[in-house]
Amino acid sequence: MNKIIYIMGVSGSGKSTIGKLLAQDLKIPYFDGDDFHPESNIKKMAGGRALNDDDRHEWLEALNKFAKGKIKESSCIIVCSALKQKYRETLRRGLLNQVKWIYLSGSYEQIFERVKNRTDHFMPSNLLESQFEILEEPEEALKLDISLTPSQITQIIKSEFMETSEFGLFGLGVMGKSLSRNLANNGFRISIFNRHVDGVEENVAKDFKAQFPELSNASAFDDISSFVNSLEQPRKIMLMVNAGKAIDHVIEDLLPHLSENDILIDGGNSNYKKTKERIEYLKTKNIHFIGTGISGGEEGALSGPSIMPGGDREAYQLVQPYLESISAKDWKDLPCCTYIGPEGSGHFVKMVHNGIEYVEMQLLAEVSAILERLGKTPDEIADSLERWKETADSYLLGITVTILRKKEGEDWLVKKVLDKAGNKGTGNWTTIASAELGVPCTLIASALFSRFISFYKEERLLLNKTFGKVNDSQLNISTNEILEAYQFARIINHYQGFKIIEEASRSYSWDLNLSEISRIWTGGCIIKSDLMRDLVEIHKETSNLLANPQLIEKLNKARPSVKKVVSECLLKDITTPAFSESVQFFNGITTAYSTANIIQAQRDYFGAHTYKRIDDESGKNHHTSWEQ
Amino acid sequence: MNKIIYIMGVSGSGKSTIGKLLAQDLKIPYFDGDDFHPESNIKKMAGGRALNDDDRHEWLEALNKFAKGKIKESSCIIVCSALKQKYRETLRRGLLNQVKWIYLSGSYEQIFERVKNRTDHFMPSNLLESQFEILEEPEEALKLDISLTPSQITQIIKSEFMETSEFGLFGLGVMGKSLSRNLANNGFRISIFNRHVDGVEENVAKDFKAQFPELSNASAFDDISSFVNSLEQPRKIMLMVNAGKAIDHVIEDLLPHLSENDILIDGGNSNYKKTKERIEYLKTKNIHFIGTGISGGEEGALSGPSIMPGGDREAYQLVQPYLESISAKDWKDLPCCTYIGPEGSGHFVKMVHNGIEYVEMQLLAEVSAILERLGKTPDEIADSLERWKETADSYLLGITVTILRKKEGEDWLVKKVLDKAGNKGTGNWTTIASAELGVPCTLIASALFSRFISFYKEERLLLNKTFGKVNDSQLNISTNEILEAYQFARIINHYQGFKIIEEASRSYSWDLNLSEISRIWTGGCIIKSDLMRDLVEIHKETSNLLANPQLIEKLNKARPSVKKVVSECLLKDITTPAFSESVQFFNGITTAYSTANIIQAQRDYFGAHTYKRIDDESGKNHHTSWEQ
Repeated sequence: MNKIIYIMGVSGSGKSTIGKLLAQDLKIPYFDGDDFHPESNIKKMAGGRALNDDDRHEWLEALNKFAKGKIKESSCIIVCSALKQKYRETLRRGLLNQVKWIYLSGSYEQIFERVKNRTDHFMPSNLLESQFEILEEPEEALKLDISLTPSQITQIIKSEFMETSEFGLFGLGVMGKSLSRNLANNGFRISIFNRHVDGVEENVAKDFKAQFPELSNASAFDDISSFVNSLEQPRKIMLMVNAGKAIDHVIEDLLPHLSENDILIDGGNSNYKKTKERIEYLKTKNIHFIGTGISGGEEGALSGPSIMPGGDREAYQLVQPYLESISAKDWKDLPCCTYIGPEGSGHFVKMVHNGIEYVEMQLLAEVSAILERLGKTPDEIADSLERWKETADSYLLGITVTILRKKEGEDWLVKKVLDKAGNKGTGNWTTIASAELGVPCTLIASALFSRFISFYKEERLLLNKTFGKVNDSQLNISTNEILEAYQFARIINHYQGFKIIEEASRSYSWDLNLSEISRIWTGGCIIKSDLMRDLVEIHKETSNLLANPQLIEKLNKARPSVKKVVSECLLKDITTPAFSESVQFFNGITTAYSTANIIQAQRDYFGAHTYKRIDDESGKNHHTSWEQ
Repeated sequence: MNKIIYIMGVSGSGKSTIGKLLAQDLKIPYFDGDDFHPESNIKKMAGGRALNDDDRHEWLEALNKFAKGKIKESSCIIVCSALKQKYRETLRRGLLNQVKWIYLSGSYEQIFERVKNRTDHFMPSNLLESQFEILEEPEEALKLDISLTPSQITQIIKSEFMETSEFGLFGLGVMGKSLSRNLANNGFRISIFNRHVDGVEENVAKDFKAQFPELSNASAFDDISSFVNSLEQPRKIMLMVNAGKAIDHVIEDLLPHLSENDILIDGGNSNYKKTKERIEYLKTKNIHFIGTGISGGEEGALSGPSIMPGGDREAYQLVQPYLESISAKDWKDLPCCTYIGPEGSGHFVKMVHNGIEYVEMQLLAEVSAILERLGKTPDEIADSLERWKETADSYLLGITVTILRKKEGEDWLVKKVLDKAGNKGTGNWTTIASAELGVPCTLIASALFSRFISFYKEERLLLNKTFGKVNDSQLNISTNEILEAYQFARIINHYQGFKIIEEASRSYSWDLNLSEISRIWTGGCIIKSDLMRDLVEIHKETSNLLANPQLIEKLNKARPSVKKVVSECLLKDITTPAFSESVQFFNGITTAYSTANIIQAQRDYFGAHTYKRIDDESGKNHHTSWEQ
């Protein structure tokens, strides 16, 4: 809504200084009321005669008429002493709540001191006196003490009158929209932005605002400059754009409009290494950058996601109230949002979250395949999984039950879904980090590779013709054994996921808190589960899940089942890479003397890589001429 | 050995021009013989009188004396007309074979034409005539036609007199030393370089040269400038330094000494992405860069490795004779060296070679563990593997047999080797490339992760106490079943390895030849095997190994065995991640309708990622509100 901002006050109160500054800041036109005097007034004044109220009336009417015309195009600033209430009534006629008054207030002495130093135009002291005599202080105006600096004054005006927002959201995709509504629902004044692309993305922000009542106080933009200017400083802008190069382009687009100490928050699934680079780059521009993981999908983003912010702690503290308010709450009603650590640690932790998620999804897919082979329909599989909620509840288990029950006509919808699984990077990155950090996240790699394999649909169809004849005899396993195998594999999955977080924390000196990370994953996010809730306490005691008595007991109990499930599936040609890998990893990590001695001997044989000996505690490198 | 290079010829033949150029090029001092006339001669000439042979004798003696002193410090160039044989005899007295003569030869007309254009000093034509009259053409000199350009002349001189080498080898580690000897054994004149590090690496090149008679013609250096200057242009320098930052440092150290079109060959295991960057960087300096994989270990490097060069084809052609000569030869006696492709393709292919190698090693380690569990001693295991050579021979199988037989006192040495397997990057990189390119190299990842797990020795010992109680009942598998499982897993391993090469070729437009790559891997390298030899022909027919009838038959035959081996091991708590993964992958890639439908439904549920339908061939994206 356009506005007329009248800046009033006695001569010498600084109206034109403030008016011009403000106009520049808000990028709206500035007008000096004195330029609107009618010809007759100008002649009168030129003749040295004072104007009376009748003279002024014509002038004020002209000014009011001008304002009414102007407001149709844009907001503007008009500077005018407007000392009497009746003058002001004329000025605001027909403009009603579109008029904002700013009254620059100072004592006679203050203004006299200021005016007498003026060299550009001299004002006799009796004129100032007479102004103070007729001044009727306005009630509806924003009264500002002229002892404040001009920039302080304009800042106050902007935040009061221009309805500046306290938080900006850039990019209105699925997640950006949900987060905007979440922020608005939490009572925050927000500005939302979506770019304009002719014929593709037009009026996205405005249309979105119009759609939801909670956004009635939000300001919607498709112009970057106006969007940025609508925000209080230091600005807090969350970027919800596609991870990758897009983020860098958006940063470059925003930079010319930002001011020192503004804070950009990247809420997408960016690569943690890139986040570190961006933090460093923006530091050179005096802009803060926070890379935050956000999990919960569309629904979680709206009702409360799990939030994993990383970057400078000082900058985080400025955005903490917003992020904590919109986040999910844990069982103690604490926010599922915590400062993760420096650099790209927030995005790293989110990346691993997604890696764990890949495995949890893969395990449920494998469970479904096994139960299906036991002859169950999707509804019957859902019934089984429904019962698992008692001991193995999780968000993903729940939605899988719902998915399996979904019918389309006579058939189950899930049977119509094409079996090519997509992936958007985080599973790959966790596997890459696993290779780089030397942490064997075998289950995440396995789940990722299963998605890759699913993508070779045509080759699979071809090879199925060649090799598809399978052993389809009865599976000799019970639903309960499958449940135990599922629990076993999930513990190994969480062990591996937290292991790589721990290793990253050590390698990069991030000082991450595994218990806090577990805690913020108990609500809002895709991998929330009863197991995760247990891990909050367990991680207070140890960073090694396999050292915890409760989990040791579970693993020992489930071990015969997982062995049976995997070997049975193997013999009956059912693909269970994640289940299988959970056992292989468990066997590997619990083996005192592994087969790596063979590998070290081979490496020494052909590459003279040397080896260490079990009977030489000095750790010295040995080399042997194996052939002699 | 220092030398005195006399440049002789009549006045105007260009002696000082060539002398100065050459001195600059070789970085040795230059002297003008005329500056050595005794006082008496100078006075005589100043008086306008001609010198006679007696006068000249004193001067030539002085010059000879100077040369004898100078040669103790360094080589140098001395310019002197030296027209008569007896003058030259005086000049070379006591210097013998340390003197090199260069005679700049031209006809009277040529030189007259040249001299008459001189503006700096005029020479009467009768003087030139008299010089030609007394000139006695030298026999032992390098006679050079003055119609050649000065740079052509200096180039010829350098290669003739300075004993330039045709190939340089930079870095004398295990591999660098072996390759140097290989080059020398092939009759190439080489220069070898190793840096000087006080107290750590001193006289490495010289000492190494002294150690091996085949290096008697090699030139050894620890000074970069001399090393580079000892090479013919365009220079060919193979870098055998540690992969990583070291390569970049070496490049920067070399650059100031290199000339346009020189060729650097990185023979280390560099990352293929870095190789691409280096090629591009050095192109801006007009230097060629070839990244080449070299496999064969210490022994292969000496007797003939497999060589995988990538980069610009034109530059490759200049180094081809050297690389092909030193490479291993295949069964048809063709070199196990072929131009792989542009950019970092050579290093990429070598990286995958090492990935395949990781798996072949891991499988042999798993085989050993299984055979050991069957109650066999290392010698008995070796006996079994020895028999496998008939049907499954490979270099790695062979060395494993040798390793297993190696005794130390009463016990087998292999039992003393610490079970923590090292890795130097290529396995990690293949796994990373696998994640980046979307190709499921599950076996390579599995072998890599097994090495990682082996490295957690302390944790393994701890967890073994908790979980170490295993089912140690008798394994119900035969040695032949293990052999079949081994062959099965190896085919899957090679399928995956060549799959990622094929995908890289497609993604990066490298146009790689899988059959040629198989061929150069039949000799010299660590993964040479009978299977690889089969792949040379198979890859001429198809890039998909699983479509080949011969391999289909092998897989079908071995499939029951590998299932039995893996499931038995699983039930008896023997860790066989690579064997297990070979079956899981096989099952996955031969499944017509996988479980990825569940994953796609989950992704659509929580992230609105949409899905495609099996009954909608348009490939349209669908989205469902699963909860309703």
